Parts: sequence; structure tokens; C-alpha cells
Amino acid sequence: MTFDYAARRERLAGLLPAHEVHALLVTSPVNVRYLTGLASSNAAVLVRADGTALLATDNRYIGAARELDVPSVEAADVAGRLKEPGAGIEAASMSVAAYHRLGEGLAPLGPVVELLRAVKDEGELELIRTACEITDRAFADVAPKIAPGMTERELAGLLDRRMTELGADKPAFDTIVAAGENGAVPHHAPTARELRAGDLVTMDFGARYQGYHADMTRTVSLGPPAAWQREVYELVAAAQRAGRHALAPGASAGEVDAAARSVIEDAGHGAHFRHGLGHGVGLEIHEEPFLGPSRTGRLEDRVPITVEPGVYLPGRGGVRIEDTLVTREGGPELFTKTTKELLVL
Amino acid sequence: MTFDYAARRERLAGLLPAHEVHALLVTSPVNVRYLTGLASSNAAVLVRADGTALLATDNRYIGAARELDVPSVEAADVAGRLKEPGAGIEAASMSVAAYHRLGEGLAPLGPVVELLRAVKDEGELELIRTACEITDRAFADVAPKIAPGMTERELAGLLDRRMTELGADKPAFDTIVAAGENGAVPHHAPTARELRAGDLVTMDFGARYQGYHADMTRTVSLGPPAAWQREVYELVAAAQRAGRHALAPGASAGEVDAAARSVIEDAGHGAHFRHGLGHGVGLEIHEEPFLGPSRTGRLEDRVPITVEPGVYLPGRGGVRIEDTLVTREGGPELFTKTTKELLVL
Repeated sequence: MTFDYAARRERLAGLLPAHEVHALLVTSPVNVRYLTGLASSNAAVLVRADGTALLATDNRYIGAARELDVPSVEAADVAGRLKEPGAGIEAASMSVAAYHRLGEGLAPLGPVVELLRAVKDEGELELIRTACEITDRAFADVAPKIAPGMTERELAGLLDRRMTELGADKPAFDTIVAAGENGAVPHHAPTARELRAGDLVTMDFGARYQGYHADMTRTVSLGPPAAWQREVYELVAAAQRAGRHALAPGASAGEVDAAARSVIEDAGHGAHFRHGLGHGVGLEIHEEPFLGPSRTGRLEDRVPITVEPGVYLPGRGGVRIEDTLVTREGGPELFTKTTKELLVL
Repeated sequence: MTFDYAARRERLAGLLPAHEVHALLVTSPVNVRYLTGLASSNAAVLVRADGTALLATDNRYIGAARELDVPSVEAADVAGRLKEPGAGIEAASMSVAAYHRLGEGLAPLGPVVELLRAVKDEGELELIRTACEITDRAFADVAPKIAPGMTERELAGLLDRRMTELGADKPAFDTIVAAGENGAVPHHAPTARELRAGDLVTMDFGARYQGYHADMTRTVSLGPPAAWQREVYELVAAAQRAGRHALAPGASAGEVDAAARSVIEDAGHGAHFRHGLGHGVGLEIHEEPFLGPSRTGRLEDRVPITVEPGVYLPGRGGVRIEDTLVTREGGPELFTKTTKELLVL
């Protein structure tokens, strides 16, 4: 997949006057990749308001850089090589130490490239769609094997392995498998705990494909669910549906969050859902925009994003249901297509 | 494995006067883990010169924090909650944006906890030893399967899977498999290129075990090696041996690098070895100390470190040989025990 990197740099150049800089020194590796196509751990690109750009990277990557459509120079200190008085720097990703080494006269800016990246082109959406297809297929292939006696770690390993076999670069993030009472911990890391009949089991996982990420969570029941488990599940499913339906170009991030959160609050479980509703996905697993109670930005068209409410009952367990979707005029397109009916395994 | 976190904080407290601060606001996640045992993505710990400490983390991790031997508070903005006028901050890991949010009166410091972490206690060495054993076993189990027709990606997948099956948390970093001409690229990412008879194949991989990392590189020959391949291999092996023999408490990082590099330079290949000789390993895969031509620090006792010279011939191929060892009075202890004879598969 190749992208129109020159067009991306041109869009960035057009934004710079509003930030009162004549150039932006881009040092975040994922932003450099987005603007040039170079995937590396040490590169920077200076993009000027006049549309010109210069890429710097070290001897490990300069060969790859020379193949790109942007002029490049070899340097070990890539930011030092490219800095220009009055240029902006990326304050969210540059360290204080790096900033001090660069010296005076640079302007720390908030997210600029990150906001550009939120809106995807169709080529990017195709990669995220494929990442989600791999995720769906891995779930379909692994679900029949889920059984009492398997550990959380073993189940996570099966999902990870299957995604890689299906063509993923690797898992998009550290896979979460949380059984029974562990389901009450939103970011539980898989342990040697064995799955048991009567457990709800939450799996939060996704594939990375050609650098782009998928993110999906499903909670299944091992054996027939108890009444409280069924009730919490249906509540979270209703909240998730409300969140998905609120996704639209023009909607505010806070409104979308509220659409789902109010369903949970109305059922008296507001205190059991203490994280944001979702986040953008793309070259990073968590990126702009973020859905949460205090978020004010408005969604645009073609923004891939997760909707992932949960209810977590300390000591008992929890449910989370998450899809990756993309905003579209006329209604969101669902990328993760695994059923959201409660599966009883 | 539990560690004496209080002793670590005490050692840190003792260093603060020399940095002219009464406290250090530690925000690097791995440094927070080192000082408290809390593994999280959002936590900070303030360690004062008087030996007291306070940990802050958000609602996702506060339950785990309450189990530790350090007082803790719940906060979303963990650094904001703990800052004190005149405290030091970690300039290498704190972003410019986070630093500006904290406001005036804080002192950016260079590496402090990182230098403490370089010297391991025996419990840490035991975990790194285990990570290296898993790495050795994975190589032993996968090597018989390496054959023409297998792709670089498939081979990387076999190594990753075997390490996980053997108990690794996960691979310590993105596994490198580089066949034939790709071996000339030190950081080559595995592709669909098939291995062919006549290739040198470089594998750079390692296991992470309970948070601690192993790092090993071996280059093998598919079929009998050509004369130039054998020659480059023996040169790199000799350089690697010289580097290992130079590892000793008291040796300077530059001297150790030179011991290996001079072997390669004397053979006329200095221009084909353009990276540092090695790096510390521990809670991070690359950490203090670093071995390189311009490095001046001196090694101490009980410092796990890699020795990994390479010769890279553009368009033709390359060889890298890497071990993880630990410095000891009386000579380094070798953790990665896979043979360094040229294996012909």
C-alpha cells in the first residue's frame, strides 16, 4: 500500500500559519512515517509552510529514505540537523532533554499532525478493515477451543498466534484475557488462572496489519450465565449500541460518550464504568480523537474509532463490548463483525 | 519474584543531594516499577532525600498500588498531584507538554534511576538468566526446522511462538530475521523473502520473562558457506570474543567497544560496522550502560550487557553475533549459551 505522502505534507503546510510557525519539526516516529512513509526509530522531517520538506535519518535508515519522494540527509542527531529558528516542535512527544539540547527559539505546539491523522483516506481504511477481518477470523477460529481448564495466558496465546498466522504483523497491543473476578479489572494482564464454568470471560485484542490497528472486545459466558451476568451483559450491549448509533460526523466526542454512559448510569451502574467510551485507531492503537465525558472536539467523516463501554463489579467480574467502526455520512461502517449476542460456550 | 523496593528508594534518596534537589518526581513507567513494583501505564512516585516516598496512580491501578510497601494516592494527573517546588523531574522521559503543564520550579535532571538500574541484584540476574535460557531453548528447538523455502516472517514467527510456549511473557522486541542480502541491514524487519541455499541468515531475538529481557543474535549458513561468508563470520566471531574478554568491572565503555572494533578495523571492515558494540538489558531491552566509541562511563560489577559486533556488506549480506552476559569480578558470566561456531544447516 502506498500513500500520497506529498498531499499529507501539503495539508500540514496549510495548517502552520494558524499555529504561527513557518515550519514544524516533526519528531514523533509515527508522524514521520505518516508524512514520508519512512518507518524508523530515529528520523525527523521538517515541513515548511511553503510546502517544502526535508527528512533526516541515521545510517541505518538512510538507504530506505533515499527511495522516498522527499529530500533526505543523513545525520545521527536528526532533530539537531533540521532545526530552524522559529520552527514548531511536537511538545507531546519530544522529551524535555531533547528540547533543551535543541536550544532556544523553537515553539512547542500541541497536536497538529495527530489531528490530521484522525481523518483517514480510503487506503488507510482498507488496511484497518483488513486488520479487523483478521481479528474477527481469529476469534471465530479460537472460540470453539475455549473451555474450562484453559488458562487466561493460554487463551491469549491462541488469539495472538492465530492473528499472526492470518497475516497480522503482530498483535496490536498486549492481549487482555480476564476470567471471572478478573473481569472487574479493565486492563487485566492474563495470568495462570484457569477458566471455570460459570465465568464470564473478557477478551480484548486485535491485529496490526501493515502498521494499522484493530481493536475488539468480546465477553463470553462459560456455561449458562447467572441472572446477574445476563443482566450486566445486556446493559453493556445496550450502551454499546447507543454509543454506536451516536457516532456521526459533526457529533461531539462528549455527546457520543454520554449516549452510551447514560444507559449505564440510568441502570445505577455509573460508578462501575470509569473509563472513556473509545478512541481513534490508525497507525497507533490509541490516537485522536478520544471519546470521554470532558471531550469537546467534533467528529469528522472517515474517522475510525472504538466504542467500548464496560461494567466492572469488583470481586465479581465484568463485561466489556468493543467494536472498531468508522464514521460515515449516513451512519458508521462496522469493521469488527463478530456477533455481540452473548455467546455461551 | 519480589524485590527490596524500599532499599532501591533509599539508594535513590542518597543520590539526590548530589543533584541539588530534595526530591525526584519519577514518571518513567519502568522507573516507577523499579522503585515500587507497580507495573502500570500511568503512575508516578516522588522520592525525597529524607527517604520518604509517595506513589500516585489512577483508578485502574490504585488497587494494586495499595498492596505495596509505599504510601499511595489516587489521581488521574499523577505528576501534577505529586509535584513539589524544587523537585527534580526526569528530562529524558517527560514530554515538553507534560513539563509545561506542571508549571515552574522543577529541575530537569539527566539519568538518575537509570544509572541505579544498571547494577542488578541477584534476583534480577536470575530473571535475566531465565529469559536467556528460554531464548537458547527456542533457538535449539527451531534451528532444525530452518530450511530453504521458509520465509523470514515464518522463521520469526516460529521463534516468537516457541519463546511464548516456553514461558516468555512475550518476545523482548520485534524479532529480526534477515536472509542473504537483507543481512546487510542491521535492523531489517522480516519479509516474505524465502530463505535460499547459500544464504547467511541472521536471527536477532530474545525472550521477556517477568519483565526482564534477553537479547541474542546468531547468524547461520544455509548450506556450505562461500569463502567470503566463512571469512566474515570468523572475523565477527573474533571481534565478539575480544569484546567479551574486555568486559570487566572498571573497564570503560569506550575501551570495551574498541577491543572488538579494532579487530574489525584491522581487517579493513571498519566502515562496515557502524553501530555501538552493545547495551545494558534489564527492565528495558536497551538501557544503561551503552558500549560505543564515544562512551566514557566505567562498567560496574553485576551489569548485564550485550556484546554484538557485526559486519554488513551492502547488497551482499552480513553477520552479527550477540550474547547477553553479566559483568563479574573474575570474568563475565555468559547468559546466552548457544554455540557461536558457524552452524551450517
